[in-house]
Amino acid sequence: MSLSSALLEAAVDQLATLPGIGRRTAMRLALDLLRREPQEVARFSEAIRRMREDVRFCEVCCNISDEPRCAICRDPNRDQATICVVEDIRDVIAIENTRQYKGRYHVLGGVISPMDGIGPDDLNTRQLMERIQDGIVREVILALGTTLEGDTTGFYLNRKVHERGVAVTMLARGISVGGELSMTDELTLGRSIADRKPYEQGMKR
Amino acid sequence: MSLSSALLEAAVDQLATLPGIGRRTAMRLALDLLRREPQEVARFSEAIRRMREDVRFCEVCCNISDEPRCAICRDPNRDQATICVVEDIRDVIAIENTRQYKGRYHVLGGVISPMDGIGPDDLNTRQLMERIQDGIVREVILALGTTLEGDTTGFYLNRKVHERGVAVTMLARGISVGGELSMTDELTLGRSIADRKPYEQGMKR
Repeated sequence: MSLSSALLEAAVDQLATLPGIGRRTAMRLALDLLRREPQEVARFSEAIRRMREDVRFCEVCCNISDEPRCAICRDPNRDQATICVVEDIRDVIAIENTRQYKGRYHVLGGVISPMDGIGPDDLNTRQLMERIQDGIVREVILALGTTLEGDTTGFYLNRKVHERGVAVTMLARGISVGGELSMTDELTLGRSIADRKPYEQGMKR
Repeated sequence: MSLSSALLEAAVDQLATLPGIGRRTAMRLALDLLRREPQEVARFSEAIRRMREDVRFCEVCCNISDEPRCAICRDPNRDQATICVVEDIRDVIAIENTRQYKGRYHVLGGVISPMDGIGPDDLNTRQLMERIQDGIVREVILALGTTLEGDTTGFYLNRKVHERGVAVTMLARGISVGGELSMTDELTLGRSIADRKPYEQGMKR
């Protein structure tokens, strides 16, 4: 694909570096931006630059924050004894949306993936270990994805946290609420049978 | 979705204005950008801003260009008697990639779409009418999409160009080269039967 404009080509090249965006889609995005007012595109471009330049990570939980300490860590009403460990900020948002959790978080910034050369030291694991040594934290909830990498990360963190005398829990696995049995994959269904609970307890909300 | 960072939120809002990018995808893109070096994101942001600010449209054919006149219009070896009318620059690229066309182009910048409030005057039709009055242009090829809007635009332009005594042609419609008959839609197949050609002529390349 040779373009009549080096400027357009440069923008398409950059857009195509985004995950899941091929050159064809990048071209569609660039043409859409070209149709807008220059000030509008300047605002677009500036919002992205500023985000990367000025965003900080919470010094306690590594969540994204505009201040040294994020809103959740600053909130005195959140339970300090419980830390929910997640892969990234999207998981924080997902769990916050349930309104079921009143503890704090720890954002790893990824999962252990030997294939991609990502080890524990590339994640925010050191900060987590420091946090649980304050004598206040009683429970670490591992809220990681059910992938091979999520499991590897959970296995590693469970050992490390357990060594320091703090309880480790993980999210329940089973059939989805509102899900149909026949649509549930075998692994999940098998697990939900093995982990079955007394009826009264299982129906509790 | 409430985020812990107004800066992140602003970037996600902007990314979500792109066509086909919802807030969930925008968040994924923003997190990817956040993981990069600040200088890398600054280059990303700058390429987009500069494209919109400095890109020009060729004063002859309205194609995207870094100079007042695009490379195709400047090329003395391109046939000046033939203008291929397309919707946007992606079509120019697609046709150039065939290496079958040696004439020039005219980029409309869209198609007539009453539903979206886009009429002939919102497109580069005036420039096309001016171009064909130079006495050099002998043929206008309408290379528009086979949608309702493409057909409406073709119908309009055919009349206008014809009025000025210039021949109008359109792309052949029929079964794809390498396509299977059973996979071809009814309209296309029906059209390819109605427009059948003598065998020798149809096999010519």
